[in-house]
Parts: sequence; C-alpha cells; structure tokens
Amino acid sequence: MNTYDASVPVFIHFLKSLSAILRKAEAHCAARKIDPAVMLGLRLSPDMFPLTRQVQIASDAAKGAGARLAGMPVPGFPDEEKTFDELQERIHKTTGFLDTLDAKLFAGAETRPISLKAGGRDLNFSGGAYLETWAKPNFFFHVTTAYAILRHAGVELGKSDFLAGGQ
Amino acid sequence: MNTYDASVPVFIHFLKSLSAILRKAEAHCAARKIDPAVMLGLRLSPDMFPLTRQVQIASDAAKGAGARLAGMPVPGFPDEEKTFDELQERIHKTTGFLDTLDAKLFAGAETRPISLKAGGRDLNFSGGAYLETWAKPNFFFHVTTAYAILRHAGVELGKSDFLAGGQ
Repeated sequence: MNTYDASVPVFIHFLKSLSAILRKAEAHCAARKIDPAVMLGLRLSPDMFPLTRQVQIASDAAKGAGARLAGMPVPGFPDEEKTFDELQERIHKTTGFLDTLDAKLFAGAETRPISLKAGGRDLNFSGGAYLETWAKPNFFFHVTTAYAILRHAGVELGKSDFLAGGQ
Repeated sequence: MNTYDASVPVFIHFLKSLSAILRKAEAHCAARKIDPAVMLGLRLSPDMFPLTRQVQIASDAAKGAGARLAGMPVPGFPDEEKTFDELQERIHKTTGFLDTLDAKLFAGAETRPISLKAGGRDLNFSGGAYLETWAKPNFFFHVTTAYAILRHAGVELGKSDFLAGGQ
C-alpha cells in the first residue's frame, strides 16, 4: 500500500471514531448530570494522562505523521481544550489538516529519513518504519486509551464504536 | 510499503512488547504476593474482556491477518490459557507462526479479497483495507487494553514498554 493510503485515510477514519466516541461520552454526561470536566479529567491511573490529553496526543500523532511523511512542517495546535466541544474542534482541525495533504507529496515517503525528539531522545527512522512502528501504534494507543477511560467510567460503548463509529 | 512489511514484522514487534509487558506483570504479582489468576482475570469494566482474553484476541488478530494475507488457512489456537506461562507460550506460538510465512506469499495481497465473519456479520475487504482498518486497529486495541488493565492495576509500566518493550 502506498504511504498516503496507509496513513492519511487511516488516521481520518479513526479520528472520526474518536469523535463519535466523545459524542457518546458527552451525551452520557448530560443524561446523568455528570460534570463534563470530571469526565474529561478521568485517568486509568494517577500517573497516566487524563482523557483530554489522550485526545490531544492522538491528534498530535496523526498530524505529525501526515506532515512528516508529506515533507511539510508539523502544524502546532495549542493544547488548551477544556470541553467536549473544544476536543471535537481539535479533532476537526486535525482531519481538516490531513485532508489538505496531497497524496503526491507522499511519493518516496517510505524511505525518507524522519527525525524527531521524544522523551528527550533523538529518534531516526525511515518513513515506513516511523509510520508502522511509531506513529500508528502511538495513535491507536491513545485512541484506545481514551475509549478505555470511558468504558471504565461506564459510558456505553462497544468495539464497533472504535472500529467504525464515525462511518 | 509492501503488505508483508506492513503486517508480519509489525505484529511480531508488538507481540514481543506484549510479552515483555506480561513478564513485568508477572514479576509484580510475585513481588506483592498477588495471585496471578486474579491479575489475569482483571477487567476495566464488567462487560469488557479480562486480561487473558485481551491477549488471546491480540494473538488472533495477528495470526488471522498474517494467514489471510498470505492466502493460508488461519491456525486455530484453543483459548485455554490460564497462567502467565501459558500466555507467553500463546504469544510465542503466534510469533512462531508469523515467522513461518514467506514474504513471497504476500504478493498481490493488497488487492486480494478477504472475507470473514465477525459479530455474526459477513465482512468483505480488500487485503489492504482489511489490514489497515480492521486487523491492525483490532490488534493495537487489544494490546493497548491489556496494557491499560495492568496500568490500572498498578503495574509499573510506561509507554516505552508498549512501543519497544520487546526490542
């Protein structure tokens, strides 16, 4: 599969799932008079990130991969979201950015050197290894963790929401 | 990236992470005199699968994708694991099966029709769509959920265990 098809539409598909999952979480809060800020601050462990940050990092993984593989600067989105609406807007901005990327920019991306800093370390990948062993695993890790936080909080979700909730 | 490189080595990489994560969980149980069967039975929600089943489904996603994309029958592994050792053996059998798959068998796999039943429905994909929107997302979903169960239970893990724990 070419690098564009293995990245941009996959990220968009699962960002739409994440958006749909968050809509169900917001409806759950409304139905049960739960303060949305409480739900957005939930964590599975005190030293894990809360729901809001999981969504922000999923966005970062998707836009970072799209931009780097296209050879473009990674757009910076300030991590200031505090409401479900603002997280929906973050997801919408992320899919919007991915939508602007021309598939032609991904020619040669599989072998293009990709360098980034993570956890204070310099990481160097080929584009293909970056996408398959770093960007997509990270992306799915944070989308799944967002889902897991909400399942643990009692929101009625099933795996179909993850796999195809936005379709 | 060719379909072999986008599937078999990715599954093996993250199955090794899962194996390393489970070794840390087992050591955590030993150090704190926790019955391993309790840890293996933990769930994030009463209607989610326990840790053992998360590992089994991750194995199923990996061997199913490897086999289907190679045009081979999917090997059946009975879901009988009850201990950390047996889960390690399940993971080892899965990576062992994936290791036997010749990359040449994946020629044309991206466009090969893939049909499977899930949740009582017949699903039909091209090989590429099956891998990118079904098999790998499912795989990462269950590996991440196993990690999340253990983090929630207090096992000392970090994302580097997920990304590169088996390297």
